[in-house]
Amino acid sequence: MTLLFSNATVLPMTDPGNGPRTLTGWVGVVGNRVALVTASADDAAAFRAAHPDLRELDCRGKLVMPGLVNTHCHAGMTLQRSYADDIPLMTWLNDYIWPFESRQTPDEVALGMTLGIVEMLLGGVTSFVDMYYFQDRCVEVAERLGIRAVLGCNYFDTNIGEVFPQVERAVGLAAAGSGRVRIAVAPHSPYTVSPENLVRGKELADRFGLGMMTHIAETRDEIRIVRERYGRTPVEHLDSLGLLTPHTIGAHCVHVTESDIETLAARGVTVSHNPQSNMKISSGVAPVEALRRAGALVTVATDGTCSNNDLDLWEELRTAAFLQKSATGDPTALPAWEALRMATANGARAMGYGDGELGVLREGALADLIVVDLQKPHLQPIHDVVSNLVYCGKAADVETVVVDGRIVVEGRRIEGLDLPDLYARVSEAVRRITTAG
Amino acid sequence: MTLLFSNATVLPMTDPGNGPRTLTGWVGVVGNRVALVTASADDAAAFRAAHPDLRELDCRGKLVMPGLVNTHCHAGMTLQRSYADDIPLMTWLNDYIWPFESRQTPDEVALGMTLGIVEMLLGGVTSFVDMYYFQDRCVEVAERLGIRAVLGCNYFDTNIGEVFPQVERAVGLAAAGSGRVRIAVAPHSPYTVSPENLVRGKELADRFGLGMMTHIAETRDEIRIVRERYGRTPVEHLDSLGLLTPHTIGAHCVHVTESDIETLAARGVTVSHNPQSNMKISSGVAPVEALRRAGALVTVATDGTCSNNDLDLWEELRTAAFLQKSATGDPTALPAWEALRMATANGARAMGYGDGELGVLREGALADLIVVDLQKPHLQPIHDVVSNLVYCGKAADVETVVVDGRIVVEGRRIEGLDLPDLYARVSEAVRRITTAG
Repeated sequence: MTLLFSNATVLPMTDPGNGPRTLTGWVGVVGNRVALVTASADDAAAFRAAHPDLRELDCRGKLVMPGLVNTHCHAGMTLQRSYADDIPLMTWLNDYIWPFESRQTPDEVALGMTLGIVEMLLGGVTSFVDMYYFQDRCVEVAERLGIRAVLGCNYFDTNIGEVFPQVERAVGLAAAGSGRVRIAVAPHSPYTVSPENLVRGKELADRFGLGMMTHIAETRDEIRIVRERYGRTPVEHLDSLGLLTPHTIGAHCVHVTESDIETLAARGVTVSHNPQSNMKISSGVAPVEALRRAGALVTVATDGTCSNNDLDLWEELRTAAFLQKSATGDPTALPAWEALRMATANGARAMGYGDGELGVLREGALADLIVVDLQKPHLQPIHDVVSNLVYCGKAADVETVVVDGRIVVEGRRIEGLDLPDLYARVSEAVRRITTAG
Repeated sequence: MTLLFSNATVLPMTDPGNGPRTLTGWVGVVGNRVALVTASADDAAAFRAAHPDLRELDCRGKLVMPGLVNTHCHAGMTLQRSYADDIPLMTWLNDYIWPFESRQTPDEVALGMTLGIVEMLLGGVTSFVDMYYFQDRCVEVAERLGIRAVLGCNYFDTNIGEVFPQVERAVGLAAAGSGRVRIAVAPHSPYTVSPENLVRGKELADRFGLGMMTHIAETRDEIRIVRERYGRTPVEHLDSLGLLTPHTIGAHCVHVTESDIETLAARGVTVSHNPQSNMKISSGVAPVEALRRAGALVTVATDGTCSNNDLDLWEELRTAAFLQKSATGDPTALPAWEALRMATANGARAMGYGDGELGVLREGALADLIVVDLQKPHLQPIHDVVSNLVYCGKAADVETVVVDGRIVVEGRRIEGLDLPDLYARVSEAVRRITTAG
């Protein structure tokens, strides 16, 4: 389908140099690519003439920008939202999370992922990076709902024998699909997966040309365990095994040394910063400003609904800015523009897309974009629309969502989705799981 | 008008003891008071029979709870939202905030307050405590929009001569109104108002039986200045002048000593915690858990749109929880229930209402309540509705708002309010102010 978004405030998120960050004008989409970004009414008229069957959407009072990219979550855990809060970590895991997980069927995980993706799409997240079980089952969910995804197959030493075959199946399913879904290999962390099994994961990823992701340096306990076991920091340990590459996403990176920061930047690893999760679980504060200064690719993410408890990237990106300003004592730290780049262009690169291929609005880029309604009390007046978006923008301000050139959300509704039925099935699954032996 | 909210999940925010925090049932309102909170269909039927003209609102899938209370903001500054971000404090004040303020007319401040109140009402804030100029002009705004307010008349040494007469006028206007609007005396801070003028403010407050509010210990600079000038902490200084009483709200209280904490608790001062503002301006982290342990009355607030940049109390109350968990290293710190109490029952006490008179749903309490739509992806499933509200609830989930027994928001609309016209007037005022000599 050919689309033309007209009379919009357009925020391409490309490097504006010394020029303005926005323009007033038109964004055209042909197939799954952005085909026009212009302030010229003549260009828009020519585009209309060249595409007589196009659908034109009037975006007066609205803003068009790239969709948000969530670089770390566990969408399949969404059935566990608010299942256990405000309790110590080991009680949380032993008494709640793990027993719940042990009782979930693959279909129930897929149902949780459905709910998570619906929440993300309605909040303007057009791409997400996931890390959980049964991703071979979940390829279909991401395909059906129309989101772009990297599905990371999470493994521990204990379940590697089950997960590796799932990787292969998932790769096959993704290859047969739209191209929007990619598969990745996801060892849980350097303290829960042995060096041998970390390397086996790397070999599997290389064999299929897949990316990798893992949790890195999330907690002080992890640092202690890895130090005791291997005499190294988690970053040094993973680097010694060859796991740190431009195709690796490291979630958290809270407790990293100066040398670790240099390594992460030098290897081109993506850092996925999860500020609300880090705060809520008392993990610590990631040195985002130091990572950015060192040239690391820093992105932003929600983590799962067990630790956050939502998948709202707007709140997450402003929390990232707030937290850096608070932790560094510098109100100029992580300014709004950089926070928004973390959630768009940087996130797209983390997913394996080339610079300018996704996460920006430029001709030729993949057409993942959102329309934000600026006619809301909390977005008025508009002195600086980037500040308004970053510090005041809400998931509910997102009106229309386009992924890969296709409208997946319009008027805040996902076509063909029966929300009350989804909630009823979620409720029934939760009842079964929590009352099962 | 008599109202009956039926088939709701009811969260009264009263002390549940060892019992459940919610009930499924009915909330009745007669005049401006809550007249029924019950799980009994028979009670509901009797209420219907006693009030044949009542309006019944079906709240299946929805939650009824007390409205939120924002205990510190500068709603009249809303025209300055996102006017200047990510820059050092003195540049911000000297080059942006103060020049802008010097050009605003009282009508433009009232317009800013209109926008701020509209944002708050639509987000479920039924009461707010304000601190700004021209409150005599703004009584009318709060009255007209139907919100409950304490309007604090902000003064410095330099403008005390103008502000004190405004206090008297505002008191007269409020007395002639609905009773929902109260006036308070608001010296800016212990470092910007002389001891003599702080005491004059207290005398004025006592003469009219008004509450007081001031910024306390917000920044390290303030601590240094007060120490150099008076040889005391800000809390010690204010206490020595007799300004710390149960009728005083102290905003921020970030840099307080253990002894200060004891004093704040002993004097019954309300602490208004503004976590997002403190983070964004790099002020520091208020010791909320220590204050709570000492028995201080702690509440939560947004601060103004220059520093936050919205008036969203949902985000603020979860940031309060996140920030305490992060700063203390304890994931059990400031649990969801306590954060929500800060934003409801505690806030109501801060405004000068007796325990149980406001901020809770019990028979006889003032009828300030909100209806939250739970049928949202980010609020499902419901393992713990309090966790869902605190960690995932959004301003946009608030569907209906009742203040003083009157429906002021229904279906997310404020009756009689022309939003596009409001935005146009805001835009025009901003244009005038920013282009004025």
